[in-house]
Amino acid sequence: VSGSFIAIDWGTTNRRAMLVEGGEVSRTLREGRGASVLKAADYPAELSAMRDTLGDHPVLMAGMVGSNIGWRAVPYVPLPAGLPALVDGLDWIDARTAIVPGLMFRADGEGPARGDVMRGEEVQLLGAAAAGMVPADALLCQPGTHCKWARLEGGAITRFVTALTGELWALLRVHGLLARQLGGEVSDGPAFREGVREGARRDLAASLFGIRASALLGLRADEDAASFASGLLIGADVAARLETEPDAAVHILADPALGRLYGAAIEALGGMGVAVDSEAAFVAGITRIWELTA
Amino acid sequence: VSGSFIAIDWGTTNRRAMLVEGGEVSRTLREGRGASVLKAADYPAELSAMRDTLGDHPVLMAGMVGSNIGWRAVPYVPLPAGLPALVDGLDWIDARTAIVPGLMFRADGEGPARGDVMRGEEVQLLGAAAAGMVPADALLCQPGTHCKWARLEGGAITRFVTALTGELWALLRVHGLLARQLGGEVSDGPAFREGVREGARRDLAASLFGIRASALLGLRADEDAASFASGLLIGADVAARLETEPDAAVHILADPALGRLYGAAIEALGGMGVAVDSEAAFVAGITRIWELTA
Repeated sequence: VSGSFIAIDWGTTNRRAMLVEGGEVSRTLREGRGASVLKAADYPAELSAMRDTLGDHPVLMAGMVGSNIGWRAVPYVPLPAGLPALVDGLDWIDARTAIVPGLMFRADGEGPARGDVMRGEEVQLLGAAAAGMVPADALLCQPGTHCKWARLEGGAITRFVTALTGELWALLRVHGLLARQLGGEVSDGPAFREGVREGARRDLAASLFGIRASALLGLRADEDAASFASGLLIGADVAARLETEPDAAVHILADPALGRLYGAAIEALGGMGVAVDSEAAFVAGITRIWELTA
Repeated sequence: VSGSFIAIDWGTTNRRAMLVEGGEVSRTLREGRGASVLKAADYPAELSAMRDTLGDHPVLMAGMVGSNIGWRAVPYVPLPAGLPALVDGLDWIDARTAIVPGLMFRADGEGPARGDVMRGEEVQLLGAAAAGMVPADALLCQPGTHCKWARLEGGAITRFVTALTGELWALLRVHGLLARQLGGEVSDGPAFREGVREGARRDLAASLFGIRASALLGLRADEDAASFASGLLIGADVAARLETEPDAAVHILADPALGRLYGAAIEALGGMGVAVDSEAAFVAGITRIWELTA
């Protein structure tokens, strides 16, 4: 029974609560009640309702639940950080309910300090390493609205960078000059690959206008514009990372569709994409944290 | 009297009609009735009203009035193009009313064709050269929603590129993660210059997320975020151009505030910005076109 707990991946727009028994997920609740629609005072009742459904077990939560738009702001843990550092940084709401901290990265090199933050992704990243799903020294990529690229060394995260690639995509698809061209389906193919190569030129504002110009000049079929634009944004992201990271292999934690696009871009730019089951990595990570608290 | 005509710079959101007499502007009408709020059928009456006000003179129009969202689509003139090519491409509505064509650039190098278009900016660019406001061989920059960079050789435009730098700025200021940080005033100063240097890394999606991370980590005062972000976008645009253009001097045609920001970015990245009076350049260009039609 000490092996049973509820793991909650509680993000901005959705949450997923899993009953974990002996390291296996026996039941899952997926709901749209993310941090963006909840007030801090709502969380105790939300959690009680989940315990009513999944059983009165200890709870470990990760994600935006631990931010200033969530239940309460849990201090970021600095790098380098492995799973033990996350355990040390757990924020205990009560003796059987805790929030996993996020990570921060601050680089004081020449010029002004640079920094980055993550909250929620750290469980997947470190869980993948703990479970042997990725090597202890590896480059990991979590595509999404805010794409995370993390370097693991000895099973700990030693640096990471976030690119708001998915957010740019979402903005361009709805607002501004290109919106009416970008509504189509995105798929890997010649237009996507062409976009990836264009994106690797790292001249995004000019390449984006080129989408409009190409339509006006009849240089590209309009039904290919969305795939080209997606390739452009992903290509720019991937090219910037491959330039600074020594690894050719990139371990991708993503839903299959987006993961395939990133994998195609990585391969087109000389790397090698390796798909990793991101849900299994989360379960592995949160379970290991749970075991370390025992 | 043959020296008198009405020049109209008729863009997407605004128009400016000038009575030009003997090469000098004697009267100007500025109105918000741009192509985005007019239907093609509206133009004859709009023009009549302007002639009622400014006098019954011949009319030369430039800008989006000649596009498929304007009065009628005037075919683009291919590069290289000087003022005589614009005259050859004039679209005559009647014997005393014409629309100046835009320009197109198509580069068939390795891989898929690349192209670009402009409509309206060509009059300023070529007018600046014709009036001796810039050298006949020069790099010109017109900052704005869609920033144009044009290379002049022998007084003709031989290539150009458009970056939607200003449009990205407008999108990020209103929508998405950074909107609430970017509402402040933009001015040249340490934060802007820091943004320019960050932008020169050409890793826009990551640098933009860094604005949010820096706020969460207290690395930059929030009142500096708008200046930093503006510097970031302008710096990325400038760095991409200075990398491929051999000129150190960039002739900037812009309103003074935006022109100063581009000038500061150009100088921070090793170039030299030279301010050019863009309204005078337009008048010089449209007057020279008018003279060539005589």
